[in-house]
Amino acid sequence: MGIENDLLLRTIAKEKVERPPIWLMRQAGRILPEYRAIRQSLSGFIELVTTPHLAAEVTVQPVDILGVDAAIIFSDILVIPEAMGLPYELIEKKGPYFPETISSASQIENLLQGEKAAERLTYVYDALTHTKRLLGNRVPLIGFSGAPWTLFSYMLEGQGSKTFSKAKAFLYKEPKLAHILLDKITETIIAYLRLKIQSGVDVVQVFDSWAGLLNESLYKEFCIPYLRRIRESITDVPVIIFSKGAYFAMEDIINLSPDVIGIDWTLSAAAFRSDHGHDMVAQGNLDPCVLYGHPEHITRQVTDTINDFGGRHIFNLGHGVYPDTPLDNVKHLINQVQSYRY
Amino acid sequence: MGIENDLLLRTIAKEKVERPPIWLMRQAGRILPEYRAIRQSLSGFIELVTTPHLAAEVTVQPVDILGVDAAIIFSDILVIPEAMGLPYELIEKKGPYFPETISSASQIENLLQGEKAAERLTYVYDALTHTKRLLGNRVPLIGFSGAPWTLFSYMLEGQGSKTFSKAKAFLYKEPKLAHILLDKITETIIAYLRLKIQSGVDVVQVFDSWAGLLNESLYKEFCIPYLRRIRESITDVPVIIFSKGAYFAMEDIINLSPDVIGIDWTLSAAAFRSDHGHDMVAQGNLDPCVLYGHPEHITRQVTDTINDFGGRHIFNLGHGVYPDTPLDNVKHLINQVQSYRY
Repeated sequence: MGIENDLLLRTIAKEKVERPPIWLMRQAGRILPEYRAIRQSLSGFIELVTTPHLAAEVTVQPVDILGVDAAIIFSDILVIPEAMGLPYELIEKKGPYFPETISSASQIENLLQGEKAAERLTYVYDALTHTKRLLGNRVPLIGFSGAPWTLFSYMLEGQGSKTFSKAKAFLYKEPKLAHILLDKITETIIAYLRLKIQSGVDVVQVFDSWAGLLNESLYKEFCIPYLRRIRESITDVPVIIFSKGAYFAMEDIINLSPDVIGIDWTLSAAAFRSDHGHDMVAQGNLDPCVLYGHPEHITRQVTDTINDFGGRHIFNLGHGVYPDTPLDNVKHLINQVQSYRY
Repeated sequence: MGIENDLLLRTIAKEKVERPPIWLMRQAGRILPEYRAIRQSLSGFIELVTTPHLAAEVTVQPVDILGVDAAIIFSDILVIPEAMGLPYELIEKKGPYFPETISSASQIENLLQGEKAAERLTYVYDALTHTKRLLGNRVPLIGFSGAPWTLFSYMLEGQGSKTFSKAKAFLYKEPKLAHILLDKITETIIAYLRLKIQSGVDVVQVFDSWAGLLNESLYKEFCIPYLRRIRESITDVPVIIFSKGAYFAMEDIINLSPDVIGIDWTLSAAAFRSDHGHDMVAQGNLDPCVLYGHPEHITRQVTDTINDFGGRHIFNLGHGVYPDTPLDNVKHLINQVQSYRY
């Protein structure tokens, strides 16, 4: 029962392919009017995340409407803190908010972890089962998780922040406690990804969205060991690691041997290849703001990006697609990538 | 009439010095109870910026209280858009807000520029005159400006943003108009810095706070040419360029021959020296969050940072000091740097 469009999987396997596959971070989202219609009929984002048949429906929309080469399950990275006992809310136009945040050893002690926590997220696994049915083997399905540091940073900070200085302060003030919490989060991520794999995902991506707030020495101490444990625990499906902004830790991440490394738009494809070689499969990295520009300019940037990566490349943006991106430009982008030939 | 403590100037002149000088971005600010006392007596931040004798008083506070090796005038980068005809407000806990933002050619056309704009900022020059009197030649006085791109980004976006996608979209959609606006901003910055120099500043620093949202190709096109013009127009005093997050443009910035290059905490001193050599005078780059940790840890990081830069180094944080930093740790930091000997 093979996947019809297996371009993503062949690229990850380092086979010779005719063009890069393309999918977009946040492709299941506000760029699609069909998504907005479903979203508006609900009380909020979290209702959509926790209602399996609706999450499945919006997951499949970009495959149906845009023809992308992979689906990624519609969900949120903050379901893991919730499963561990730290629920969040999503405040319109402000983002996530945790009524309770972590500041003490006893709170960390009380958090659920591992399978016990991950098993609570039945709505995610149900959404995956629904999605597999709707997709019908057309394209691979990607499951994902936040990385330990990124989840930790929300659990300490309680909300988005320009500096995440509370979360970072904890690394400096309470390194031992920080490691205990990162360990519990990591065990939960591993159990969660395994349950996702049992529910049918073909690839997993780990998002370290706030990696760029650290530096090489913090990343080596508080991130790499946990990413390594995740990488080594997931052997059934390929693993993509996307540490946004972590230009300073590229070699450390490559040394983890992820199947794919995600790259944001600040690191050029040419610089990545010249500094880190042509062996790694790279995913990225068009600046999402390029999609506000003229189609001819998009075409040029697509060609340059593909040429500069020179193969072993999954086309994506360097960040999630912004909600107000003109849909015609998104379609143009996908069309340009899909008509490219190496 | 020399400056008594000229360690900063000798370091910039690449003379052999006994230790790195230290000052902190945002040293005149909320970390000091004496600052908070003055600030609380006023209607808002902007009143403090626009009242010369008070701006001078808070500028000198960190010299009196902390014994730093330089003063930096208390002001705000957004006085330049205001002088050009785009006033801003500061909303408590939210940050800057521009009631009107730039979106059209005619708005750009109508902006004041150059001397005509810069001359309106008399309160800044008056604050400098007051400051020089209060300082009495104890330490050098640093004047500053936002960089063209950073000011541009606020003028387009109207407020802080995680992505500044409106401002970046304008670069892609309307590159010609963007250049016209960047040109006007640049002319104003140059006139402004010249008037500051006439008012007695000994060094100027250009802050490109949102550099890290771009990439090498955008930085080369929309930032470097304007920074070059500023660099070449300021010959009377040394110029520090601090492009936060612009790891991808380090060589381009070094090629501008600034007297000093500012470095944020994400780029390690060791990596900077090994990639870019030992010739440049570097300013930075301790992670401001280190100051939330234990004094012994601060001591270790100070020593490592100074050793890794290996001379030609102005000690600073890699970002402004955060308002809730424990004052005792700030004092410990300064003490550690000032008791170091090469």
